[in-house]
Amino acid sequence: MSEIRAAIVGHGNLGRGVEQALAQALDMHLVGIFSRRPAEDIQPLTAGVPVYALSDIDSHQDTIDVLILCGGSRSDLPEQGPALAGRFTTVDSFDTHARIPDYYAAMDEAARQGHNVSLVSIGWDPGLFSLNRLLAEAVLPQGTTHTFWGKGVSQGHSDAIRRIPGVRAAVQYTVPVPTALAQVRNGENPALSTRQKHTRECYVVLEEGANPQTVREAIVSMPYYFDEYDTQVNFISEAQLQADHKGMPHGGFVIRSGSTGAGTAQTCEFSLQLQSNPEFTASVMVAYARAAQRMKAQGLTGAYSVFDVAPALLSPRPAAELRQMLL
Amino acid sequence: MSEIRAAIVGHGNLGRGVEQALAQALDMHLVGIFSRRPAEDIQPLTAGVPVYALSDIDSHQDTIDVLILCGGSRSDLPEQGPALAGRFTTVDSFDTHARIPDYYAAMDEAARQGHNVSLVSIGWDPGLFSLNRLLAEAVLPQGTTHTFWGKGVSQGHSDAIRRIPGVRAAVQYTVPVPTALAQVRNGENPALSTRQKHTRECYVVLEEGANPQTVREAIVSMPYYFDEYDTQVNFISEAQLQADHKGMPHGGFVIRSGSTGAGTAQTCEFSLQLQSNPEFTASVMVAYARAAQRMKAQGLTGAYSVFDVAPALLSPRPAAELRQMLL
Repeated sequence: MSEIRAAIVGHGNLGRGVEQALAQALDMHLVGIFSRRPAEDIQPLTAGVPVYALSDIDSHQDTIDVLILCGGSRSDLPEQGPALAGRFTTVDSFDTHARIPDYYAAMDEAARQGHNVSLVSIGWDPGLFSLNRLLAEAVLPQGTTHTFWGKGVSQGHSDAIRRIPGVRAAVQYTVPVPTALAQVRNGENPALSTRQKHTRECYVVLEEGANPQTVREAIVSMPYYFDEYDTQVNFISEAQLQADHKGMPHGGFVIRSGSTGAGTAQTCEFSLQLQSNPEFTASVMVAYARAAQRMKAQGLTGAYSVFDVAPALLSPRPAAELRQMLL
Repeated sequence: MSEIRAAIVGHGNLGRGVEQALAQALDMHLVGIFSRRPAEDIQPLTAGVPVYALSDIDSHQDTIDVLILCGGSRSDLPEQGPALAGRFTTVDSFDTHARIPDYYAAMDEAARQGHNVSLVSIGWDPGLFSLNRLLAEAVLPQGTTHTFWGKGVSQGHSDAIRRIPGVRAAVQYTVPVPTALAQVRNGENPALSTRQKHTRECYVVLEEGANPQTVREAIVSMPYYFDEYDTQVNFISEAQLQADHKGMPHGGFVIRSGSTGAGTAQTCEFSLQLQSNPEFTASVMVAYARAAQRMKAQGLTGAYSVFDVAPALLSPRPAAELRQMLL
């Protein structure tokens, strides 16, 4: 079996996670890292990995089987994704749920024109959580699915706090409400408001002289981000933040409780407990990059999501071995 | 969208579960129930469902899109499966793990010759548990997967107890050991013996005059079934058995703890809590029957497992709606 030649676009937390995940994928080889930043600003984690200018990527078309796009969903991917999908088979983690249909359409058109495969919105949510929502609903059509997130750091909410005047640094954790989780698991099928499903825990370092009461009020009343939640604000020192809140843990639960026959209760649950959100998302992307290369080799073209990928394509093991060892 | 025309072969617990699951599948229609038993011995749960002799099934080839095989893995499926796969697209729940490669090969050959699709070993284990073992391993190649079963009734172990002289009736529950489950969830990656993973709880009704001590000894020392486990034997009355142990609950856990990057702990868990094992297995089979019909319509032929089925094929919802609602 010849190795799958992968390349990374963007070397932030996600790109570094992909670099590490590729090192665990014995059937894949990292061709290089592409960035808009000057090459000397990029420090590959593995010695000898070449760094290239993103503007030169077209000259590498013959040496790359699949491009793993590690840019952000807000501004990077909407522009980079369709531009690159015409020229490369790609995997990305586009995660702005409301814009997925538009992004998917743009990627599908570009990938079809370039005769490439683009796997979009790959990660855990969207991604493995979506897959489990679909599976559980297909198997238990009469039922209700609940998704809980956390305990974990929400980058978007942390950023929102940092924009408040007087805040020097902040980390926000999304925390599922244990009683709500228990009700859902018991198949009680509760009607849960936003406030009843998750709480928000904030750890905030203030600027010199900032008024904690003003900052607290600005956080808890912030529309959409915090006003619909029970929000706990903790003021801590910079040293405490560095010591206790520099990780990027996350996780969550997809639970469907349904009924079969004459009201027989059946419950499916999928959960993740992650010490590093970006490293796990990166690991999912690398498994799907393997599938993307294989789908392209099968002659497929266009955009696909986790819903369209047969699970065997994710594994380096041969089909007969999978049946014997894992079925 | 025209309805998918499904038929059931065999009307035991599993076949009745399929009949109930098809009633929840609005895009599918139950054409009839086929059995080797005389038609008057079969009582469909829904009025008006026709019952046919299995020996006449060939005359129904034009009216059936997919046949759901509900026979047992020991003697029914090894014979019926390959015989029917040449003439119909099929789904079965063949679950003798050690014999899956042989069964798969026989089904693959028959289905290819008949230009049909056969989805084999569909249910939850083998089935959804297998799928989660594959997914978790592909995403976290450095790690360990543990499967726990229960708390639930094991039909095979209950049958084994019933064959002991002096036993009138018996039900056996497989129970995961909570401390072992907790260790695995915490990513401690313990080396667990058979005895350390599961205990076995037996509820036994004795014949008049049978010696409880003799029966207990016969159970706990039974090779393969009980001797490697901590086994609890409870003698109860027939009335208690009827009152408390007539259900067929089951479930279990597939947990993979792995590490990414420089030793970052990541854990995936999939679990089921089922009030009725056969009704849930049947529900999985019906979702995969939908996929089987679609794969046949796509021009595929041969045998496939859960590893080969793209998740979107399981859902009655259109692809764009799935992306918008569940991704």
